Amino acid sequence: MLTGGEMHALVERLYPLCRSITGDGVRQTLAIVGEHLGLQVHEVPTGTQVLDWTVPQEWNIRDAFVADASGRRVIDFRASNLHVVGYSVPVDETMSLAELRGRLHTLPESPSWVPYRTSYYSPTWGFCVAQDVLDALPEGDYHVKIDSTLADGSLTYGEHVVPGEVSDEVIVSCHVCHPSLANDNLAGIAVAVSLAQQLAEEKPHFTYRFLFMPGTIGAITWLARNAEHVDRVKHGVVLACAGDRGSLTYKQSRRGDADIDRVMAHVLKDKPHEIREFSPYGYDERQFCSPGFNLGVGSLTRTPYAGYPEYHTSADNPAFVSPEAMEDTLDTLQTAFAVLERNRRYVNLSPYGEPQLGKRGLYDSLGGRSDAKEAQLAMLWVLSYSDGEHSLLDIAERAGLPFGAVATAAQALQVAGLLKE
Amino acid sequence: MLTGGEMHALVERLYPLCRSITGDGVRQTLAIVGEHLGLQVHEVPTGTQVLDWTVPQEWNIRDAFVADASGRRVIDFRASNLHVVGYSVPVDETMSLAELRGRLHTLPESPSWVPYRTSYYSPTWGFCVAQDVLDALPEGDYHVKIDSTLADGSLTYGEHVVPGEVSDEVIVSCHVCHPSLANDNLAGIAVAVSLAQQLAEEKPHFTYRFLFMPGTIGAITWLARNAEHVDRVKHGVVLACAGDRGSLTYKQSRRGDADIDRVMAHVLKDKPHEIREFSPYGYDERQFCSPGFNLGVGSLTRTPYAGYPEYHTSADNPAFVSPEAMEDTLDTLQTAFAVLERNRRYVNLSPYGEPQLGKRGLYDSLGGRSDAKEAQLAMLWVLSYSDGEHSLLDIAERAGLPFGAVATAAQALQVAGLLKE
Amino acid sequence: MLTGGEMHALVERLYPLCRSITGDGVRQTLAIVGEHLGLQVHEVPTGTQVLDWTVPQEWNIRDAFVADASGRRVIDFRASNLHVVGYSVPVDETMSLAELRGRLHTLPESPSWVPYRTSYYSPTWGFCVAQDVLDALPEGDYHVKIDSTLADGSLTYGEHVVPGEVSDEVIVSCHVCHPSLANDNLAGIAVAVSLAQQLAEEKPHFTYRFLFMPGTIGAITWLARNAEHVDRVKHGVVLACAGDRGSLTYKQSRRGDADIDRVMAHVLKDKPHEIREFSPYGYDERQFCSPGFNLGVGSLTRTPYAGYPEYHTSADNPAFVSPEAMEDTLDTLQTAFAVLERNRRYVNLSPYGEPQLGKRGLYDSLGGRSDAKEAQLAMLWVLSYSDGEHSLLDIAERAGLPFGAVATAAQALQVAGLLKE
Repeated sequence: MLTGGEMHALVERLYPLCRSITGDGVRQTLAIVGEHLGLQVHEVPTGTQVLDWTVPQEWNIRDAFVADASGRRVIDFRASNLHVVGYSVPVDETMSLAELRGRLHTLPESPSWVPYRTSYYSPTWGFCVAQDVLDALPEGDYHVKIDSTLADGSLTYGEHVVPGEVSDEVIVSCHVCHPSLANDNLAGIAVAVSLAQQLAEEKPHFTYRFLFMPGTIGAITWLARNAEHVDRVKHGVVLACAGDRGSLTYKQSRRGDADIDRVMAHVLKDKPHEIREFSPYGYDERQFCSPGFNLGVGSLTRTPYAGYPEYHTSADNPAFVSPEAMEDTLDTLQTAFAVLERNRRYVNLSPYGEPQLGKRGLYDSLGGRSDAKEAQLAMLWVLSYSDGEHSLLDIAERAGLPFGAVATAAQALQVAGLLKE
Repeated sequence: MLTGGEMHALVERLYPLCRSITGDGVRQTLAIVGEHLGLQVHEVPTGTQVLDWTVPQEWNIRDAFVADASGRRVIDFRASNLHVVGYSVPVDETMSLAELRGRLHTLPESPSWVPYRTSYYSPTWGFCVAQDVLDALPEGDYHVKIDSTLADGSLTYGEHVVPGEVSDEVIVSCHVCHPSLANDNLAGIAVAVSLAQQLAEEKPHFTYRFLFMPGTIGAITWLARNAEHVDRVKHGVVLACAGDRGSLTYKQSRRGDADIDRVMAHVLKDKPHEIREFSPYGYDERQFCSPGFNLGVGSLTRTPYAGYPEYHTSADNPAFVSPEAMEDTLDTLQTAFAVLERNRRYVNLSPYGEPQLGKRGLYDSLGGRSDAKEAQLAMLWVLSYSDGEHSLLDIAERAGLPFGAVATAAQALQVAGLLKE
Repeated sequence: MLTGGEMHALVERLYPLCRSITGDGVRQTLAIVGEHLGLQVHEVPTGTQVLDWTVPQEWNIRDAFVADASGRRVIDFRASNLHVVGYSVPVDETMSLAELRGRLHTLPESPSWVPYRTSYYSPTWGFCVAQDVLDALPEGDYHVKIDSTLADGSLTYGEHVVPGEVSDEVIVSCHVCHPSLANDNLAGIAVAVSLAQQLAEEKPHFTYRFLFMPGTIGAITWLARNAEHVDRVKHGVVLACAGDRGSLTYKQSRRGDADIDRVMAHVLKDKPHEIREFSPYGYDERQFCSPGFNLGVGSLTRTPYAGYPEYHTSADNPAFVSPEAMEDTLDTLQTAFAVLERNRRYVNLSPYGEPQLGKRGLYDSLGGRSDAKEAQLAMLWVLSYSDGEHSLLDIAERAGLPFGAVATAAQALQVAGLLKE
């Protein structure tokens, strides 16, 4: 399991790669993830029909620049892959600065930052550049070159499965289509890797499926190829923006009252956080929660989608994410999954009057513990509300007791034959 | 469609007529309304059983006064029809002031105003007079005369129908039984006339039925005669007190969550207003919402029933109502009906993952519009929540978007084959 | 029906008896209650299986003391029965103070008070003593004697039934197992006695069953012996801590929305009070509300269970409870049961439009009453909401009218043939 520092190192290692929704940048990323996790890598050919979409041509890029008359690169892909609009078609022309301007994207409000832009489905080309750099360009002719290819190939995504006691699944999904952006979503990838490693060390109840996929088209491709199995996905989290220094935000599933929604609210209760209702924009929860699937999948971020100035700019670099923030995101997910794992509905097998706990040693066994009072109350609450309708989380929230105390009580009562699942 | 000024002129023209729950005052009123709207006038004979009630005898009055010994009229029906208690039986007597006092109604708190009183179902007679006038009457004998008739005849009401695409109906109901009271309910009649004219210029989805009926017994008569068709009434508004300078009050239907209740809350949101829960007193929503019918009919007023000092007094005169207030009431109803007309439930025909809007031109077509972002969000919301359960109004409120944006998005998606009703 | 002063006198008379969950103290208590109420006393033999429990051996005690070397009793059961741990096994030994200390229970925070302790199901013995007294004991040997017996016998409880028009029952349950503690629960017993007397003077609708039983094992025994009839218990209150000077607390049944929960909230509305959600600890509501039975039984106390420093100490003596507080508890229960008795669901037999009340004399009959307006509104509310779903209490709360006005209106409407149950 990666430490905060190791997660940060992984972010730094992945940072220079030029990812997009297809192409070698994704493959290289998955190869590095694969050094940490056994990864099943899928290649889905261009032209494959996936739900309402078609897998596009594969895009690869080797070099790109704008050079002045002297040949000096004034905008250089080698300095940052953000300089090229994603999916730019090849170009090799000379044009005046005036002509070039129509192809340049800047952020006038943050003149030293380079924006991130793409154009996946309308063939075009362009460059992204700091406003300051643009302002300093003298008039004149410029040589514009993008050495890219758009060709039949495939879309690439990776899966890692941590098998559980049951085939019911929890999915954790990360997008892997953004180039040099650290928080969005290299931090998410790093936290997912560490989380998967940690779960593999346990024997979890649920099967956990980690998905490393390009945004939108990747999730749509996965859903299309797994449509007949998708009902085994009982819970899930889309993980993104996992490393900035803001507090955590959980965005509910479209259902709003899915188990994962309840669990996340419970574990976030004691730290600064925000809960948002579902909205049909953001990350791949859009696809998992589309009304035909309507899965119990929410989204965990720190500062959410488009909520920070550095979002989709060159300022979202490795310095923008911190080891501590990634550890906090990881801890929160671990705690949430620990609740999810134990959050069952039980039935009290002795529901007429209170069962006599003393004769079963359920008082004695607790007598010497400092938390005996809490443990005893937890048993009474579990007995009182285990009617097959209330989950342990329901009971914990109703009782105002820690989930762990309630789950431990349930376990003791089950061992004593007073409770069954 | 009447302007504010024209509505006010209609109030002034109707004001002098002596209306009651039956009689020629109602017929004259309907005749004037009929100059603006094609009106079907119904006459229902005295003695007709209507639900739990019986159509009463018809009341007509030609003259009434209290005259002093010199023959001077100290209280004169010709000055104001409010001076006679509605449904007063004929009388022609001379009596002392002391004897007369028991027949006189005043408003001691507003000594210059004449109150409005009726006694429909217990035969009696009486006069209403300003406290100031009463106080100035010298002792002595007075000649009391009411030249009225109570005789078999009929109850009169009018209907105007604006046909729609569907036979499902929206009713707009006004009481026409009050004599010289402007806000209660000549302003309501004037707003209803203008609204009906405006709807007739459109081809509405729903059929709109405007009812001009005496309060209580009129609504009961209409319900009795239309009991077998009443289930086509899907929505409705009882319109009263439509012209005073107070802000709008919407009283919910007994259901509390009828479509009209939701729609009125939505359109009132952005102006000063009050929403009240249903109560079984007020105007004819009492009858439409009686538990056997329980229609989705609320009531729109400005200052509500009994909520202003001028209520049921001579101070509720044409000066008490304003053209601007009537226009505001009219606008609000128009806006509400525009929402009601478009507020459907749709089903997303491509519910598995997001449909690719770009390939259908649903992005391009918006590119040049300044509200493109809102329009695009609206499409995502409509797709996400169009599961046959959420109405467009539900979606607009959930999304925090204007209803119009959501309805326009639904239309575009329907044209694109992504949505069906 | 006992006055406040008579209830207090009953508390004082019962106070010296040494009650426990079995034994002669309970029998003597029931004998005194039986002087006020016809009481059916049940004896259930040791060893009887009752639900998950077994009726224990019967405990009786004649004397107990700790005496110093001179024979002076330094702790004396004859001074207060609280001095002996309930269910103490017999002992007759001489031991050092050091050895003795392990058998002594004190309240260091309240050094002049004697705590109340029991050990029903683990055989042991002990004494309870004021910290001040303990501190004053010199080193030395002490003669320790408890002249008790634990032997096969029986568990004793009493029932008093006030027959009603229907066999549906309301239970009022008091625990009778506490020795010299006044508020917990002699005040509850006294209030129950007075309440039963008062109900017997009426001919109530429901059958009222008063239960005077040892806590936990008594309720479990009663439930075991009445399991097949328990579904006739429609409502109930566990009554305890009924006499302290604090305000009233109502603890809801496990259902949370049982009729009794609604009624108690309604009658407490106008006085200082607290409503608590159900929790699976407290008094015998724990048993009545165990999930297998899940009865509509709440608990009424003044300051609740464990909520006052005097709780389970010698300071809970007759001076701690007041006649006025017991009268207030009694009044509240009487008011609540009066609501419960009349809280039916009716059906409007003339639900299409408003029925004409005038022709049935329902206006006239009210004309001379000062509360005519309220009575008339109440009739309209009852007619409007009597659809078989809304109870009179629902209607009273919705209308903001006193329950009595609504119940009276319902009665008038029923007599007029407009309403049926």
